[in-house]
Amino acid sequence: MAANEDKYSDNKPDGDNWRSRLYEIIFEADTPAGKNFDIILIASILLSVLAVMLDSVKSFRLAHGDLLYNIEWFFTILFSIEYILRMLCVKNKTKYAGSLFGIVDLLAIMPTYLSLILPGSQFLLVIRILRVLRIFRILKLVKYLNEAELLISALKASGRKITVFLFTVLTLVVILGSMMYVIEGEENGFTSIPMSIHWAIVTLTTVGYGDIVPKTPLGIALSSVVMIIGYSIIAVPTGIVTAEISFASIEERENKMPKNICKHCGNDKNDSDALFCKHCGIKL
Amino acid sequence: MAANEDKYSDNKPDGDNWRSRLYEIIFEADTPAGKNFDIILIASILLSVLAVMLDSVKSFRLAHGDLLYNIEWFFTILFSIEYILRMLCVKNKTKYAGSLFGIVDLLAIMPTYLSLILPGSQFLLVIRILRVLRIFRILKLVKYLNEAELLISALKASGRKITVFLFTVLTLVVILGSMMYVIEGEENGFTSIPMSIHWAIVTLTTVGYGDIVPKTPLGIALSSVVMIIGYSIIAVPTGIVTAEISFASIEERENKMPKNICKHCGNDKNDSDALFCKHCGIKL
Amino acid sequence: MAANEDKYSDNKPDGDNWRSRLYEIIFEADTPAGKNFDIILIASILLSVLAVMLDSVKSFRLAHGDLLYNIEWFFTILFSIEYILRMLCVKNKTKYAGSLFGIVDLLAIMPTYLSLILPGSQFLLVIRILRVLRIFRILKLVKYLNEAELLISALKASGRKITVFLFTVLTLVVILGSMMYVIEGEENGFTSIPMSIHWAIVTLTTVGYGDIVPKTPLGIALSSVVMIIGYSIIAVPTGIVTAEISFASIEERENKMPKNICKHCGNDKNDSDALFCKHCGIKL
Amino acid sequence: MAANEDKYSDNKPDGDNWRSRLYEIIFEADTPAGKNFDIILIASILLSVLAVMLDSVKSFRLAHGDLLYNIEWFFTILFSIEYILRMLCVKNKTKYAGSLFGIVDLLAIMPTYLSLILPGSQFLLVIRILRVLRIFRILKLVKYLNEAELLISALKASGRKITVFLFTVLTLVVILGSMMYVIEGEENGFTSIPMSIHWAIVTLTTVGYGDIVPKTPLGIALSSVVMIIGYSIIAVPTGIVTAEISFASIEERENKMPKNICKHCGNDKNDSDALFCKHCGIKL
Repeated sequence: MAANEDKYSDNKPDGDNWRSRLYEIIFEADTPAGKNFDIILIASILLSVLAVMLDSVKSFRLAHGDLLYNIEWFFTILFSIEYILRMLCVKNKTKYAGSLFGIVDLLAIMPTYLSLILPGSQFLLVIRILRVLRIFRILKLVKYLNEAELLISALKASGRKITVFLFTVLTLVVILGSMMYVIEGEENGFTSIPMSIHWAIVTLTTVGYGDIVPKTPLGIALSSVVMIIGYSIIAVPTGIVTAEISFASIEERENKMPKNICKHCGNDKNDSDALFCKHCGIKL
Repeated sequence: MAANEDKYSDNKPDGDNWRSRLYEIIFEADTPAGKNFDIILIASILLSVLAVMLDSVKSFRLAHGDLLYNIEWFFTILFSIEYILRMLCVKNKTKYAGSLFGIVDLLAIMPTYLSLILPGSQFLLVIRILRVLRIFRILKLVKYLNEAELLISALKASGRKITVFLFTVLTLVVILGSMMYVIEGEENGFTSIPMSIHWAIVTLTTVGYGDIVPKTPLGIALSSVVMIIGYSIIAVPTGIVTAEISFASIEERENKMPKNICKHCGNDKNDSDALFCKHCGIKL
Repeated sequence: MAANEDKYSDNKPDGDNWRSRLYEIIFEADTPAGKNFDIILIASILLSVLAVMLDSVKSFRLAHGDLLYNIEWFFTILFSIEYILRMLCVKNKTKYAGSLFGIVDLLAIMPTYLSLILPGSQFLLVIRILRVLRIFRILKLVKYLNEAELLISALKASGRKITVFLFTVLTLVVILGSMMYVIEGEENGFTSIPMSIHWAIVTLTTVGYGDIVPKTPLGIALSSVVMIIGYSIIAVPTGIVTAEISFASIEERENKMPKNICKHCGNDKNDSDALFCKHCGIKL
Repeated sequence: MAANEDKYSDNKPDGDNWRSRLYEIIFEADTPAGKNFDIILIASILLSVLAVMLDSVKSFRLAHGDLLYNIEWFFTILFSIEYILRMLCVKNKTKYAGSLFGIVDLLAIMPTYLSLILPGSQFLLVIRILRVLRIFRILKLVKYLNEAELLISALKASGRKITVFLFTVLTLVVILGSMMYVIEGEENGFTSIPMSIHWAIVTLTTVGYGDIVPKTPLGIALSSVVMIIGYSIIAVPTGIVTAEISFASIEERENKMPKNICKHCGNDKNDSDALFCKHCGIKL
């Protein structure tokens, strides 16, 4: 069972009544009804996100604006009903409402209502895409969740190193950006220190938009230094994460293969298919 | 023998007749005739791809259009005859037609015929470049194929982790792109959500075309965050693939190392530091 | 205790007088007064850096120029007093003035005074951001300092390899840049060899501003080669740093692991798989 | 002694005459005269490269054209005399002339003479920068040469994997570039297949000049795919090189620390400071 499913299982109402049956359909994917519900849900989410995207394309909105408006409200009302049903059938309402999926489920319907007051906010509906993460539960992609957990644990283990690295990068871009502001000045596009810091980030991360480029010889020389630094220090986060992923992968592999421990000499490096200890020759 | 060659060998007609002799020339590279055929074939492929490329250069097409047209038809007819001969001499026609090289061989002649109906489609002839992959067979570059297999197996082993990573990146660019659309709006070049998602991909992958750049202070701040994220998370796929390639290389090296062979039971899987055979317990 | 704090402790005046009490407040963070002083200091630094940044934004400067001018002088005088107090309470004045933090503390007040003679130099005040590094001391982020030291030692260990790499890159961009200058010439934007070397750095590091792009067929072909080289050799610094970080992490982990301690001779450096003490030969 | 120096030592004339003494000064750096010669040589090289660079800057050339012209000829004649002296004092002239440094020494003087016939070719004089590589010999930077050799051997060991990777990348950009040419067409800047392949390289390597960008929805979608591919597959060369550098570093470390092999049980994993075998307890 993935950790993700367990969280929900904890919230299942006791006994065998309409609430627990509804819970099985909406929150679980083990019954045919539950699976069908989830498939229809994901299809609805993807369709509704597609509608939001198309609504932002001017030519499409001019041609099919009314249709898209109706689709948006249709899905919003559908997801609102779903949210109410979810609230009804969980044992602990606060727990669901405060969980990651509970918050995302609410955020996925708010923008449409909000757009009645604040026009334009309906585009925030794309947050619905996060709901699709449920797909991992339906498809029983437990193995993918395990891999994701391995990656997250590797990132967490390297969190402090990454923080130190990001802190160094931020200090670097503040100082380099300000130097470029003093060197190049407003007449060459470096209109302010925040703008110059933005340039330093664009250059150090090797993005290189090219909307602001140094013009003075000193500025060009300094920008070359920034690029070489950026090109070199990318090795640092990569090295950190690679080392952690290697460790996590090694541990995962070792955990999978049980080793034979010799009771006589205590050697725990015997292969799993060994019949005799490779150090003392005693039968295992 | 590389896996690649074996697939073909399975399809060789029985007996010693014109079909099996033709098969040896066209599909194999062990006889002088077979080797010469392959060398001429690769030269033809490269020449024909070069002709397609030059045909797309306007100044060249205006000057030598007729010549290029003739070259194109010459090679297409040549490759068509070759395809028919291949079909004739294989034992199992469906197997060849359905194989990767069978499909590529067909795709390499289709665009010229198609261009009679759909002008412009002849440029798809560059797909012929895939036929050059046969070069590995001629030059007996089995070692290169082994390295390629090691890389492919490393990528396969990290496939699930890469999928999780790509899924995360796609979710990220959809949400970040939509936020930028709301923040910057159409007047600053972020004309629609799909366009803004494109911008998010351009920025996150550190490509940075610079055709669309944020103008508002909030947009500039968010884009800086996107760049730092993109600069940092590239460490994740790199870490995944590096770990897998390391494992694959370690295994490859260990396979090359001489193992302790037991004189008593013949077990050749003992570790290099083993003192006793792990299968029969006899001192090595 | 972090190495950082020890350096300061060495400079504490002897006895219990106003100087040692002032030292505790200004340099240490163990007493409530010391902690409060540091928190106020960091808040002042961040506010003053923010003021410098806003001062560089034209619209903001026109609206609130006088206010920002006053804030700048207020913080400069405040930090000047702080610097004098620091000088007063340390045992060895030369040692503090010559230390990294001593130099940064002085540089953080100089630009304002300098701006009376050289207008514009006040923007160099952002160097104050370096003072924020003290934050690690206040928050007792010793673990972060350890991680930083691990990273620095990994970078130092790979210093010679990185030097060789940078030397190769510099030689490469000088030669490639000059070739592009000869090929493309001034009419295509490659106005001089230094400018062309700048282009080579922009391209090799994959920054790609796009302000100068090759126009001639030969230049386009060479630039493609430069890109492929840049895309491939980034693997070299990454590989170097990754290997060193892995070694440093492995050592760190091994140091944490409990070693076999010999009850006979007290040697605590036995490997975890040792059966006999490596110093006295007694069975563990 | 580095391999680099040995190559030269092999070419030293026998006996103690003016030729062997000249050889010591010009080719070696062990005597004071030899060291001084090398330092003056490197200073001359750097000055002459600087002069070539400044000569390419239009404003500088207009102001000091004659001076630069004289400097150029001064250094060319100086280096020509040096080349003749080198030729005179080596035992085997063909061996020196054919060595890497022999060729570079000749190339470093040719462009000036060539510029009498072909104006503009004097800028190729920057090739002189390669002569500076001698600096490693003077400064006795043997350790740096060792590191360089480690890097080169790691790159060589991964050469076949890198070849397979580059072959895949080239096939990819030919096909993706041609697809973009068909999709976008000449009206959107994709003027020919070679130009579109150039765009594919610019995008895949994450350089992203932005001089050519897709305009059609299909082209934008495909370019997003190219970017994601480029962002992901950079992990492959990095992984390959990292694995090799790790192996090379591990071997280097292990070679430095001699291990104690136990004569009784054959265990070769004892620490270098062990007095007793950790497996059988026998005195080493």
